[in-house]
Amino acid sequence: MIVQFELDRSQPAPIYRQLYQRFLESIADGRLRPGDRVPAVRALAAELNLARGTVDAAYQLLIGEGYLTARGAAGTVVTPQLTTVSLPAPRASVASMDYQGTHSGGLPLALQMGLPALDAFPRKVWTRLAGRQLRQSGLEGLVYPDSRGYAPLRMAIAAYLGISRGINCHPDQVLVCAGYRACLDLISHTLMRSGDKCWLEDPGYFMAREALKEGGAELVPVPVDDQGLDVAQGIARCPDARFAVVTPTHQSPLGMSLSLARRLALLDWASRTGSWVIEDDYDSEYRYQGKPLPALKSLDQQGRVLYTGTFSKVLFPGLRLAYLVVPAEQSQAFARQADRLHNHCPHLLQATVAAFLSEGHFARHLKKMRSLYARRRQWLIDALRQQFGDRLQINPHAGGMHLVAVLGEGDDRLLAQRARAQGIAIEPLSHWYVEAKPKQGLVMGFTNIISARHASEVALRLAQVI
Amino acid sequence: MIVQFELDRSQPAPIYRQLYQRFLESIADGRLRPGDRVPAVRALAAELNLARGTVDAAYQLLIGEGYLTARGAAGTVVTPQLTTVSLPAPRASVASMDYQGTHSGGLPLALQMGLPALDAFPRKVWTRLAGRQLRQSGLEGLVYPDSRGYAPLRMAIAAYLGISRGINCHPDQVLVCAGYRACLDLISHTLMRSGDKCWLEDPGYFMAREALKEGGAELVPVPVDDQGLDVAQGIARCPDARFAVVTPTHQSPLGMSLSLARRLALLDWASRTGSWVIEDDYDSEYRYQGKPLPALKSLDQQGRVLYTGTFSKVLFPGLRLAYLVVPAEQSQAFARQADRLHNHCPHLLQATVAAFLSEGHFARHLKKMRSLYARRRQWLIDALRQQFGDRLQINPHAGGMHLVAVLGEGDDRLLAQRARAQGIAIEPLSHWYVEAKPKQGLVMGFTNIISARHASEVALRLAQVI
Repeated sequence: MIVQFELDRSQPAPIYRQLYQRFLESIADGRLRPGDRVPAVRALAAELNLARGTVDAAYQLLIGEGYLTARGAAGTVVTPQLTTVSLPAPRASVASMDYQGTHSGGLPLALQMGLPALDAFPRKVWTRLAGRQLRQSGLEGLVYPDSRGYAPLRMAIAAYLGISRGINCHPDQVLVCAGYRACLDLISHTLMRSGDKCWLEDPGYFMAREALKEGGAELVPVPVDDQGLDVAQGIARCPDARFAVVTPTHQSPLGMSLSLARRLALLDWASRTGSWVIEDDYDSEYRYQGKPLPALKSLDQQGRVLYTGTFSKVLFPGLRLAYLVVPAEQSQAFARQADRLHNHCPHLLQATVAAFLSEGHFARHLKKMRSLYARRRQWLIDALRQQFGDRLQINPHAGGMHLVAVLGEGDDRLLAQRARAQGIAIEPLSHWYVEAKPKQGLVMGFTNIISARHASEVALRLAQVI
Repeated sequence: MIVQFELDRSQPAPIYRQLYQRFLESIADGRLRPGDRVPAVRALAAELNLARGTVDAAYQLLIGEGYLTARGAAGTVVTPQLTTVSLPAPRASVASMDYQGTHSGGLPLALQMGLPALDAFPRKVWTRLAGRQLRQSGLEGLVYPDSRGYAPLRMAIAAYLGISRGINCHPDQVLVCAGYRACLDLISHTLMRSGDKCWLEDPGYFMAREALKEGGAELVPVPVDDQGLDVAQGIARCPDARFAVVTPTHQSPLGMSLSLARRLALLDWASRTGSWVIEDDYDSEYRYQGKPLPALKSLDQQGRVLYTGTFSKVLFPGLRLAYLVVPAEQSQAFARQADRLHNHCPHLLQATVAAFLSEGHFARHLKKMRSLYARRRQWLIDALRQQFGDRLQINPHAGGMHLVAVLGEGDDRLLAQRARAQGIAIEPLSHWYVEAKPKQGLVMGFTNIISARHASEVALRLAQVI
C-alpha cells in the first residue's frame, strides 16, 4: 500500500476524521500524487480493521471536497487536476463546524471514566445472539416497540434484580429507557411538578442535576460525609423536598456507601412526607472489598423508591439501554407517560439483551469483569503510587469503575484541561461540587488500563502534565 | 400437539400475553391437564412462527404464577398439584396492570395509521446488512455514539435529501434523533424560551402539540384551508410567534399541500421576524398524483427552517430513528445541546441504515412501496365506495399513508371506539382539531391492506360498526 496510516485511538477526533486528515497530509506532502489510485474501501477497512462505513465516510468527505475523484469500476483516485502547489487547506467552515462534544463518537482517551472494559466485551456471543434475533424476530421487531420496554427483557431484569440486588418486583414495575437521562425525564414527566424541591448529593453527578432542573425541580444541594448523603442535613435544610437523588452503593463520585442508618433515615423521611427517592445504582455490580450491598430499593416497604440501573456500564454504552423500577401503585401512571413520551427502545437491542441475560451470559460476564477490574484498579493504584508517592492521595473506597485522587495543591480543572490536550481524560473532582467546599482532585477510570505497563505509561504521562 | 392456538394478530394485546391467556384457557377447560408436558419453547416458537423470546415470556409468566413447572431437562409441565377445580383466576393485579397504551408492542390492528407495509419490508437485505455491521464494527460500536448521529449516516441522509427533497445541506447540519418527538425536544431545548408563541396547524398532529407545550411553548392554533396553513391568519392572530410547525407536503391529517404562495409567505414572515419554521416532512416520500413537491426547506434562503424527517414511515418504527436538518449557523448550538441531552442513538442501527441508504437499497425500497401503496390505497377506496356509497366522503388528496373519510353524520370518537373493540384502529378526525370547528371523520391507514379481498372484508366489518 502506498500510504501508512497510524490511527491514534487516544485522539478525541472520530476515526473517519483522522483518516480524512491522514489522506490530506499524504496528499499535501506528496506521498499521494494527483492521479494516484487509493485503496478500495473494502480493502482499506480490512487492513486497518475498521468498519467499511468509517472508511467510506472519510472517502465521501474527501470526494465532496474535491481531493478524491470516484471513477466507478476504475476505482477512486486523487483528483488529477489537483496540483500539490494549489492544494487547498481543509475548508475552514468544515473544520470549525466539527464540534467536539463529550461524546463525539470517538474512541475513549486514557483514563476516561464511565466506560466498561471495551477489549473484554464478549463480542462473539453478542454477535451470535443479535444475529439470531435478527433472523428470528417476527413482525414484532418492526412495529412500535412496547413503550414500557420489551416484555421478556423486563422479566429478565426483574429476575436479575431479585437475585443480585435484593429487589422484589414484578416485570410490570420495570420500564426500559434509552439511558439514565431518559429514566430521569420519565420520572419528572410522571411525578414532578414545576418548583418541586429536590435534594441532590453535593458533590454529585452533574447530568442528574441538569436533567432534574430542566424537569422543573428546584435543586437543594445536601452535603455528603463518610456515610454518604447527610440525611439530617437534608431535613434541616429542606424538610418538604418532594425528591431526593442518591447513589447509595458508591456515592458518585467519592465512592463511599450510604450507611444502613442513613438508608433507614432516608426511607423514613420519604414515607413520612410522601416524597420520592431516586436511587441511581449505576455501577453497583462492581465491588472489590466486602460483600455487595443490596440496593436501597430492597429496604423500601412503603413504595417510595424509584430505582434506576443501566446497561451502559455492564454491557456497553452504544446500546443506549437503562431501566427504571417503580412502585407497583405507580406502574400505570409511568406506563401512560412512557406511551405519551414515545419511550420506545429498539426491539433488536432489547431482545438481544434479554437473551444475553436469560441465557446466563450476563452473570458470566459480570463475574469475569469483577476480577478483571480488580486487577486493572490495582495496576493503576500501584503505578500512581510509584509515580506520585504522597503527592496524590488515592481514595481507598472509590466507586466500581473509577478512582478518585485528591490533590495536595493545584487547580484540578486546569490540570484536567492540560491532561486532555495530552490525550488523558481525567475529570476534575471540583466539577461535581455545588455549594460544599470543593476538593481538588482527579477522577480516573481504570477499566481500560490493559496492563501494568500501560498503567505505568499513563501515570508517567500524567506526571508530565501535573 | 395437544393445544391449538389461534393468535389473533388484530388484537391489541401483545402476543406473549395472548399465548399466556390461551394456556390458561386450555388448563381451565381441561384440554391441558395437571402433569401434561407442554411443548418446548423452541418447538412451539417454530410452529407458531414466533420469536423464542415471545414464547419464553409467556412460559415465564405461567411458571411465575404457578400454572406451569419447569423440570429442567425433563421439560416443562402443567403443575401437577394444580387441580382443575382449584384453578385460580388470573391474578387480578396482573390483569389490571397490563396497561394497554397506544404502543404496547402488539401487532397493528386493521387500518392502523402511521405504519409502513410490514409484509413488504425487505427483511433479508436488512438482516444481511445488520449482520455485516455486527461482525465488522470495531470499538466504535461499543462506545457512546456521536450525540449528533453516526457520521456516515448523516452523510447518507444529506445526500438523500439533496437528491430527493431538493435540500442542499452539509452533514454537519444533520442530527439523528430517536424519533420525531426527540427532534422536537432537541429543538425546544436549543431554541425555545418558556412562553414562546408557536403556530400550530388546526387540525394538526396532537403529539407535536403536546411535545412543544411541554417544551415551554404557548400554542397558537392557526386554521388550514385547501392551500394548507393560512399564513395571513397566523400573522393576524399572532404576528410575534417565534415558531410555526407545518406539514407542507401532506397536511397532517387532511393531506393537502401547502401552496407555493403560502410557502413564500411563511418564509417571508419567518425571515422578517426572525422566527423558526419547523417542517414535519413525515411521509413526503409517498405521492400518487402529480410530481413530488420539493421540501419547504429547499426554498429556505435565510436559514429559518428546521427540517425533520423520519425512518419510521419508510423503513420501520421499531428502529426509532429520525433526523433533523438545521441551518448551518445553528449546527454548533444543536450539537452542544444534543451532547447535553445524551442524544445518542444505537450505533448498530445507525450503521445499518447508513449502509441501506448508501448501497442503494433505500431508493429501490421506496420505488417499490410507491407502487404498492398506490394499489393498496385504491383497493381501500374502492371497497369503501362499494360498501358506503355516498355516506362516506373520501378525501381525494389525503396523505401518503392514510385516507380521510368525512362523515355525513355521527360522532367519530364513538365510532372509533366501537371500531377498536372490533379490532379496527380508525382514528377520529375531530381529535386533530383544537379551536377550528371539528369535522367528523375517520382517518384510516391503507398501507397494510394486503389485497382487494382484505379491503372488502375490512370495509364490511367497518360497516357493521357504523
